[in-house]
Amino acid sequence: MAEAEAPNRSPEIRKDRIHNRWVLFSPARSRRPSDFKAKSNPQPNNKTECPFCAGHEHECAPEIFRVPADSTADWKIRVIQNLFPAVSRELEFQNSVSALGDVAASGFGFHDVVIESPVHSINMSDLSPSQVGEVMLAFKKRVEQLQNCDNVKYVQVFKNHGASAGASMSHSHSQMIALPIVPPAVSARLDSMREYYKQTGKCSLCDIQPNELLIDQSAHFISLVPFAATFAFEIWIIPRDHSSHFHELDNEKANDLGGLLKLVLLKMSLQLNNPPFNLLIHTSPFQVDPSYAPSTHWFLQIAPHLSGVGGFEIATGCHINPVFPEDAAKILRDVRILN
Amino acid sequence: MAEAEAPNRSPEIRKDRIHNRWVLFSPARSRRPSDFKAKSNPQPNNKTECPFCAGHEHECAPEIFRVPADSTADWKIRVIQNLFPAVSRELEFQNSVSALGDVAASGFGFHDVVIESPVHSINMSDLSPSQVGEVMLAFKKRVEQLQNCDNVKYVQVFKNHGASAGASMSHSHSQMIALPIVPPAVSARLDSMREYYKQTGKCSLCDIQPNELLIDQSAHFISLVPFAATFAFEIWIIPRDHSSHFHELDNEKANDLGGLLKLVLLKMSLQLNNPPFNLLIHTSPFQVDPSYAPSTHWFLQIAPHLSGVGGFEIATGCHINPVFPEDAAKILRDVRILN
Repeated sequence: MAEAEAPNRSPEIRKDRIHNRWVLFSPARSRRPSDFKAKSNPQPNNKTECPFCAGHEHECAPEIFRVPADSTADWKIRVIQNLFPAVSRELEFQNSVSALGDVAASGFGFHDVVIESPVHSINMSDLSPSQVGEVMLAFKKRVEQLQNCDNVKYVQVFKNHGASAGASMSHSHSQMIALPIVPPAVSARLDSMREYYKQTGKCSLCDIQPNELLIDQSAHFISLVPFAATFAFEIWIIPRDHSSHFHELDNEKANDLGGLLKLVLLKMSLQLNNPPFNLLIHTSPFQVDPSYAPSTHWFLQIAPHLSGVGGFEIATGCHINPVFPEDAAKILRDVRILN
Repeated sequence: MAEAEAPNRSPEIRKDRIHNRWVLFSPARSRRPSDFKAKSNPQPNNKTECPFCAGHEHECAPEIFRVPADSTADWKIRVIQNLFPAVSRELEFQNSVSALGDVAASGFGFHDVVIESPVHSINMSDLSPSQVGEVMLAFKKRVEQLQNCDNVKYVQVFKNHGASAGASMSHSHSQMIALPIVPPAVSARLDSMREYYKQTGKCSLCDIQPNELLIDQSAHFISLVPFAATFAFEIWIIPRDHSSHFHELDNEKANDLGGLLKLVLLKMSLQLNNPPFNLLIHTSPFQVDPSYAPSTHWFLQIAPHLSGVGGFEIATGCHINPVFPEDAAKILRDVRILN
């Protein structure tokens, strides 16, 4: 296993031009002692079966669809409603402004779950490349359904792996929340990417030159550690061709993405000892002003949770990353996967 | 101890007009089962002494000042350099733009630690009101020193309590990081507050009417749960009089703040079983355009960590809070402190 190199670097402040924010790179922070016990890896399952397992379908909220569509006991993927939704599909969408000027809206929206395997102990990285591709196509199908619902402006697809990354169930699954608003971080990303386009005439992700930040690549995608990574060993997977929306993904590209995603998840898990992580699909709102089209480019972010987020990050929006992206990329590039 | 009431509320989306972001309020989320073990409270100290204790001063990075200034072994507060700083006071401040257009700067800045007691096991809420006031005045004194350093634009004062809130040392301490940039979340807050002023002619925090959100108040401060609290049981302490900068605090107000801060920390600790938390001082950059002066108003935020932050929050900037602020405020208002 490759060890982290520790060149004698000075701290550096870098600008993330996609999200328009600053990150402090500080190798010294990784040498801090602690009188708390070490952070544990994702807690092992206490159970061998759960409501997401095959045979427990009746314990779940209603199913939306399954893959294959006509399967009975032998399904591979199920898309279901979340039994404890953050937003409600039964509310009318309504805005209100109080006498004090406070702005609120009803909690309308859709909160769904994608169960990625019928088997309790299978992780996403245990699936075959084509199976990971099928999960991507299940995301796509559900996003396309949500596009046809009134008042849905944006769908966030995300996966929480491990309790400290926000998961409450250990059975491999992803979630998607469809919202009647465009979230602030999405607007900021779109504005920042459009600003780059205005300055250079190019899309910031089409224009990316990974060089020493490259991890791996496939026919249609590249994976890299971003120049101003928010998290240590953060990974992005970017489509080579310009595309604003994740749901433009076709079958061939989904299969190709499945292979690259499986590879980087395996590398991360081996190198970092199965860390808790989030997987996020950064796409565009369904309706965007045409002036954004040439500059918005969807991508996938994998954010390992190796250290907690503290008060400084919450207060300032600046993260502190102890690992320089060039060093993280070299380590991940060099991890050997035995077949 | 008061129990959380659970009125049958529908989810709601509220706008935080100070930070210009949305929060999803979703009581259903608090009823989720989990097959991971429950989150533990702050891990107990493994040790009874550490480098922050009296008698271990030689194990620390250099001291900046102590309180009382002329004390020897019997100091009450020490302000020292951080031995593992996120930024370096020894670097020149320099910007650079690479051939690829990437923007970076040297990691110049100051990262200091405020040791709040010579005794290992004392928490901030164990100090007397006047001792908490003295900690506030130590913050103020160091901020004023940093104001005189070249290239320092903003100082973030923050406290991490508990390992999962980012603390690596359990001995009660706060930190401050002085930066050569204005962090993005600070700019966003200033812009949002100025926008409110433009629309209403009033400062958004002078104009706040806590009503059912009030927890407690003192001669010069009010404490409340904000209308669109990001975190469950989040608490703000706001000076009654308009003031842009924390370091305008005088001795009388520091003493008054010490009493109210101690009270709400005790209430939170009793009600929520000593949770991990962050304490943040939201102030203004040293130099602000005069057009911001009537609308920027410093305040103190206490953010308990009762549930982890997951992928949805990281991707969208929208937090999900399972506890309505009115309910949290009533519970905290009703906690009885025995003297």
